Amino acid sequence: MTQKKRIIVIGGSAAGPKSAAKARRIDNNAEVIILQKDADLSMASCGYPYYVGGYFDDRNQLLCTPTGVVRSPMFYLNAKDIEAKVNTEVTDIDTKKRSVSFKDALSGETGTLTYDKLVIATGAIPRMPPVPGVELKGITTLQSMKDADFLRKIRDEKTIKKAVVIGGGLIGIETCEALQLAGIEITVIELLPQLLTFLDWELAKLVENHVRSKGANVITENGIAAFLGENGKLTAVKLQNGIELPCELAVVAIGVRPNVKLAQAAGLKIGELGGIEVNEYMQTSDPDIYAVGDCVETLNRITGKKVHAPYGDLANLQGRVAGENAASTNCVTFPGTIQTGICKVFDYTAGSTGLSETAAKRLGYKDIITVINASPDKPGFMEGKLLVTKMTADAKTGRVLGAQCIGPGNAAKQIAQWAMAIQGKLTVEDLINADLPYAPPFSLAIDHFIATAHLMQNKIKGRLKGISCKEVHDKLQAGGKPFILDVRGPEEFEEIRLGIGETLIPLGALRKRLNELPEDKNKEIICYCKISLRGYEAQLVLEGNGWKNVKVMEGGIMAWPYTREK
Amino acid sequence: MTQKKRIIVIGGSAAGPKSAAKARRIDNNAEVIILQKDADLSMASCGYPYYVGGYFDDRNQLLCTPTGVVRSPMFYLNAKDIEAKVNTEVTDIDTKKRSVSFKDALSGETGTLTYDKLVIATGAIPRMPPVPGVELKGITTLQSMKDADFLRKIRDEKTIKKAVVIGGGLIGIETCEALQLAGIEITVIELLPQLLTFLDWELAKLVENHVRSKGANVITENGIAAFLGENGKLTAVKLQNGIELPCELAVVAIGVRPNVKLAQAAGLKIGELGGIEVNEYMQTSDPDIYAVGDCVETLNRITGKKVHAPYGDLANLQGRVAGENAASTNCVTFPGTIQTGICKVFDYTAGSTGLSETAAKRLGYKDIITVINASPDKPGFMEGKLLVTKMTADAKTGRVLGAQCIGPGNAAKQIAQWAMAIQGKLTVEDLINADLPYAPPFSLAIDHFIATAHLMQNKIKGRLKGISCKEVHDKLQAGGKPFILDVRGPEEFEEIRLGIGETLIPLGALRKRLNELPEDKNKEIICYCKISLRGYEAQLVLEGNGWKNVKVMEGGIMAWPYTREK
Repeated sequence: MTQKKRIIVIGGSAAGPKSAAKARRIDNNAEVIILQKDADLSMASCGYPYYVGGYFDDRNQLLCTPTGVVRSPMFYLNAKDIEAKVNTEVTDIDTKKRSVSFKDALSGETGTLTYDKLVIATGAIPRMPPVPGVELKGITTLQSMKDADFLRKIRDEKTIKKAVVIGGGLIGIETCEALQLAGIEITVIELLPQLLTFLDWELAKLVENHVRSKGANVITENGIAAFLGENGKLTAVKLQNGIELPCELAVVAIGVRPNVKLAQAAGLKIGELGGIEVNEYMQTSDPDIYAVGDCVETLNRITGKKVHAPYGDLANLQGRVAGENAASTNCVTFPGTIQTGICKVFDYTAGSTGLSETAAKRLGYKDIITVINASPDKPGFMEGKLLVTKMTADAKTGRVLGAQCIGPGNAAKQIAQWAMAIQGKLTVEDLINADLPYAPPFSLAIDHFIATAHLMQNKIKGRLKGISCKEVHDKLQAGGKPFILDVRGPEEFEEIRLGIGETLIPLGALRKRLNELPEDKNKEIICYCKISLRGYEAQLVLEGNGWKNVKVMEGGIMAWPYTREK
Repeated sequence: MTQKKRIIVIGGSAAGPKSAAKARRIDNNAEVIILQKDADLSMASCGYPYYVGGYFDDRNQLLCTPTGVVRSPMFYLNAKDIEAKVNTEVTDIDTKKRSVSFKDALSGETGTLTYDKLVIATGAIPRMPPVPGVELKGITTLQSMKDADFLRKIRDEKTIKKAVVIGGGLIGIETCEALQLAGIEITVIELLPQLLTFLDWELAKLVENHVRSKGANVITENGIAAFLGENGKLTAVKLQNGIELPCELAVVAIGVRPNVKLAQAAGLKIGELGGIEVNEYMQTSDPDIYAVGDCVETLNRITGKKVHAPYGDLANLQGRVAGENAASTNCVTFPGTIQTGICKVFDYTAGSTGLSETAAKRLGYKDIITVINASPDKPGFMEGKLLVTKMTADAKTGRVLGAQCIGPGNAAKQIAQWAMAIQGKLTVEDLINADLPYAPPFSLAIDHFIATAHLMQNKIKGRLKGISCKEVHDKLQAGGKPFILDVRGPEEFEEIRLGIGETLIPLGALRKRLNELPEDKNKEIICYCKISLRGYEAQLVLEGNGWKNVKVMEGGIMAWPYTREK
């Protein structure tokens, strides 16, 4: 009988338990031990905002299996033959002795365990702004079960009237919604010029408009200067521009940094972004130690560069890889991420996969081409809801680089389609005739995704002369005087319009009213309609009649992120 | 000035108008004419069942643009500079003179038009059963706007009590739902042993169970022998086994055949399946004639064989290809279909893409491996709903061949993911670490799609010893006596159970109760739970303790299509 292999996992949230469970399934004889600092195990931490927001009331739902069994140490022991020690903080890793030292948070007792293989899943730590007053009562993050309990209690007690969310990323936006649903007056503060930086500015602005329409206040390009308080309690936050916002609660959501304290002290290699460096086997610089989840750096599959991508789905997948490799030998690999992310924002969904235009440009990509498409997700008679997608491609190869999609429609399905297209290394031409599941309850006959590819094809072929709403707006701000042509119907114009000096000529009348257009055939003309399908037809009509500088405002009015006349 | 090219399109439903519109956009100078037999143009024919079912009331919604403009001849003329002649039946194509003859259905006037390029989009004709009584009043199809009007009137008048739907395919099932929602007592008759033949039997059976649970009756393996009537009106249908079903309405939905009368008379090559033969440019055997939509045969991209795939989305995509080629020169191609289809079935969705096991076997594929996965689409705390997926792959190459997904959950997103995976020619290994949009409102941390790939990987690697519910059932029917092990909890067992001689030992107690298992370590043991995740853990526990013939019933109780004890 060979000796049992001992696999120790540090961390009991997502990646850790997954590593442990996979290791157990691969090696039925191994001794598998989880050391978890907190009291809870295998928390569905991405669900915290929905618990706080009241989507469900039973806290145990965040901790239990689909059949309702709480994932306690007893559960791990009985169902999986895994020893899970909770309230147990690892204080040291000795890579030479292959041992970990730990301390029981309740009893204070300490101990040491040797390992054959170690998996580090120590997660990430919320960043805190380096400003005075962070110690005041009423300031929290939403990162732990304890934080969720604290905020849920606030919801249930209904005593707090005003709160500030610091940070307009995924967690910030989810927290904003949760607290808004709790009846609290919310202001979101973001240092950058936009919310949700995985989106390009114009789509983020559409999301911001939606957040505002739900009653939440948004302040961008402004950071926090200090937390102000009385008697140790938060009373206001002071912004960098001097404004003071009275509030009794502040939730800090300005991102996380990998928790690498133990790994660093053990001499493991830390990457440039501050995460533990791992190879494709999720193995650290010490061959007996693996690391997974929010504490590591991951490969971006598109750029080949390392990124810090603290997402719950990746944590689980990495855990599965490390668990198998730790239990047998390096045999399975993790290919990296394309940084697919998604977020519910009140009645909107906002998602992204691959590279945004901003990200691609920052990374030095040349020959980037983008297009914006707005359309319903389903036919009108099936209550289709709007989607706005911005696609990024390599103009030379046609390769899809990324896509973002927002709106009240089913953006999750769209992003899933783009994510698979990118993982299949598909080009625009590959998507043109994609065969997707069509029936009216689920999509348009030509799905929004395919239509976006059609627009991109038309743009690459030089047929669609697209220009973004932002470019149009910037042009007008800079004093440009293009002829602006709205080709919708008069009733539509009465109901909603931009008011940027446009002339209304409905598409159906355009061929008969060409005399109302600029005599100068070289004059810049910008066409649009509600979503710019008719805008594109108008471009072709005008070009067919000799105008040489005709453009289409992509996505039309539905993609216009600025204020409208009406 | 060169002479205008004249492009004539025969057919005004989906593929025809799309061809015409694309041709116009490519050649602004061409003369583009649509000849349409019916009174309406560009009907959203896939929406008929939802109009009949009362999802919306305004008939014009089937005929109008997203902004509410009915697509009339005037609309085509003004907005697109396309001449659309409705009520105009083409009676002959003369390929030598390059002309079409037509007849005005209202005035009886005839005429002839020459063409430079012709696009045939004559659609398909519903099959009718070759039985007595088909001429009786009360028998219809649901293929035309007229049919939709007829059935909607029946809904609104509420005089009909009983109806029979003949055919359990897509249209049959959609019609069943529509009429059931209209308060009519429905029986669906299907000649084959199952509904929805794009699904394998066991998934189709789960859908059938759902249809029955909604109050509709389903009779399989039985065809219609005659329509019976009095005074020229339908009173009953007689089945092949002699049973008579009283009814005042019968909707025939036993499939369609390509409408190739004109093409055939013109000497165009017709394929083996009865559709017009076209090349990748959608060009017929006459280089000046293209054909698109339900009247053509299309390439299956997986098998390389021709199929008849009468789907609205393909019709539109083909129209776009033919329109461009007709307007310029052969420059764009249609790659074919992977036969992605989807259908709403009351509260269920049923979809498929690629090859089912049945289809793959029929086509002679060797080394097929399948797996069934059941899980919610989202976390329980976000009201996740069940999905059951069956995946088909090539066991040697790992290439994904197909996937079917049914259930109350978001199956459309699942099928879309599979469709893109197949179009990207991905393998099981490529899907294992797919990066999909995860947040609790949209999916599980490990999405159902990825989990299905994990199960398949475990099965290919010989870890998961999967066996389908059907195999278990057949084994028991044949007198087999495997030891059947349900590893759920006692409360779950009280609530729902199969009653096939199973022994209940909860997974958490299994390691302590191994003495209750067969002494013979070679005895066949079949484990399962609700969805067989715990079932798989049980398999590993038993194997770890020396049992050598342990299997897991894939999908567990949720995939069991037979009656249960409880």
